[in-house]
Amino acid sequence: MTLDRKPRPPTPIANRQSPIAISIGDPAGIGPEIILKALARLPRLRPRIIGPLEVFEREQRRLGTKVDLSIVDDAVGRPGRYSYGNPQKKCGAVALQALEVGVELLYRNDVTALVTGPVSKQALRMAGFRWPGQTEFLAERLGAKHRAMLAWTPSFKVVFVTIHEPLARVSRHITAAAVAEKTRMLDRFLRDSGIRRPRVCVMAFNPHAEEFSLGEEARIAEGVRQARRSGVCAWGPIAADAAVARRHDWNGYVAMYHDQAMIPAKAFGRDEGVNVTLGLGRVRTSPLHGVAFDIAGTGIARPDSMIAAIRLARRLAHRCQQRPAG
Amino acid sequence: MTLDRKPRPPTPIANRQSPIAISIGDPAGIGPEIILKALARLPRLRPRIIGPLEVFEREQRRLGTKVDLSIVDDAVGRPGRYSYGNPQKKCGAVALQALEVGVELLYRNDVTALVTGPVSKQALRMAGFRWPGQTEFLAERLGAKHRAMLAWTPSFKVVFVTIHEPLARVSRHITAAAVAEKTRMLDRFLRDSGIRRPRVCVMAFNPHAEEFSLGEEARIAEGVRQARRSGVCAWGPIAADAAVARRHDWNGYVAMYHDQAMIPAKAFGRDEGVNVTLGLGRVRTSPLHGVAFDIAGTGIARPDSMIAAIRLARRLAHRCQQRPAG
Repeated sequence: MTLDRKPRPPTPIANRQSPIAISIGDPAGIGPEIILKALARLPRLRPRIIGPLEVFEREQRRLGTKVDLSIVDDAVGRPGRYSYGNPQKKCGAVALQALEVGVELLYRNDVTALVTGPVSKQALRMAGFRWPGQTEFLAERLGAKHRAMLAWTPSFKVVFVTIHEPLARVSRHITAAAVAEKTRMLDRFLRDSGIRRPRVCVMAFNPHAEEFSLGEEARIAEGVRQARRSGVCAWGPIAADAAVARRHDWNGYVAMYHDQAMIPAKAFGRDEGVNVTLGLGRVRTSPLHGVAFDIAGTGIARPDSMIAAIRLARRLAHRCQQRPAG
Repeated sequence: MTLDRKPRPPTPIANRQSPIAISIGDPAGIGPEIILKALARLPRLRPRIIGPLEVFEREQRRLGTKVDLSIVDDAVGRPGRYSYGNPQKKCGAVALQALEVGVELLYRNDVTALVTGPVSKQALRMAGFRWPGQTEFLAERLGAKHRAMLAWTPSFKVVFVTIHEPLARVSRHITAAAVAEKTRMLDRFLRDSGIRRPRVCVMAFNPHAEEFSLGEEARIAEGVRQARRSGVCAWGPIAADAAVARRHDWNGYVAMYHDQAMIPAKAFGRDEGVNVTLGLGRVRTSPLHGVAFDIAGTGIARPDSMIAAIRLARRLAHRCQQRPAG
């Protein structure tokens, strides 16, 4: 299936019984394995799994799981023979098709949330994918102008101001407007999660914050002021190491670059980290790890992050439905 | 006392009974408080405390500790009246004098190790200090050409390739030679700590390592190769978030910039982090936190990091003495 048309405005949200969808991700990675292992641990859940049935049947035989595979939506092409652990065009094509089906279901409100399996960007590109990642693709298809990545763990939530940039070029992307926007989006998410007056910590870019600033900290401070004027209870810029040391003081963090967010997320989140896309007007989560080609096919992949991604997707979708639609 | 002369070559190391010295740091910060609280918890230890007796007497009255103050080396000038919580020239002068006495004791091998209390760089500069920090001062006075900062915690040890640089300028300082040197120094430290064949993880500079590199990762890879040729069991560059997620695989880390090292050190180290200077030919540790002007004088400062710094200094000094002197 293809989606070569302009995004439509969102339609009223799906009814409460709508299932969540899970896209397979790259079959040569650990995606199918962690999906089956997760569902074996969540027996009452009947999501729509998007991916080739034959892949899941083979993985089920290999792993010995007993998941009812009638929930597999076999609408995507079969990859044929492929090998674990490396980027292949046919695997990228399967991942891409599953993602396209997933976004279409989400767009039509046939599902309340989409959990995406891990993909190889290299394989996706071999298959003709032209977006930087799944998130950008989803944003374009769902017509979302402003979006943000949130790394969610039970005890540490962080939104990224920049994500996939060479670190030496991050400074120029740190603007007051970007900081204010991400701070507001995090605040909104935290309020939607049930926190009445979230306390948001905005991290500094430089060591010790102001001491070694080349102007970034002044821009961050201005972004914090703008967010505060919108009613967000935000503080910053706060030196990042001090910020994580006092993590019980904050409900969430705004980080300036990838590793500033991901190092504490991995440190505190153990294996339960979830990637949440904010601003889509829909719920989308995914595990906070990649295809793990180094251990694909070995059977040792742990499903903790996928389980957390599924559980969080259900919870967020449920909350969305309690708010007025439109 | 002054030290206006060329550094001499190290003399044979002190005998085992030599005490360790602890310099007061900035009297307007939490230094005196955490020193007294630490010594109250280590009653059998009799270090040489360097700082004005009247400051410690006043702090002791305020805190109600019962440390025997005959161990205070009152060779430095008195600050007179000062207030807690802000940088003052007279407090900077006390911190500087205590540091000078400490380095002289260390240099003459009158003590086996120096633990430095936290200082305010601003106050030090007011008092005429012209080095970037205590570490650079110690290195110059002890004639150390190559030195490295190690953030030590019970479960996470990390050496810095760069420390106090604006983040946007770090890239240019990442050279193969710098990476190789710090990797070798960490390896040496870990071997000296009793690990026979340390496994060292060298962190990548960019998110996902190679994917967004502007050349830094190739230079890091070359540095790792050089270290391996010297017999160091090093791997890298490894994406920093993945590196900390698998921290039980490694005995130590090499980080490219301040926050990459300090975020996980604070996350894993809780309050027990210690700053160790490698390459001085002497043992020098300090707490892994600053003067904490925001809580100075309130009595709520926790001595955990100072206790860890003292204990580690004793252990390292003891190990040094077991190696041949000279």
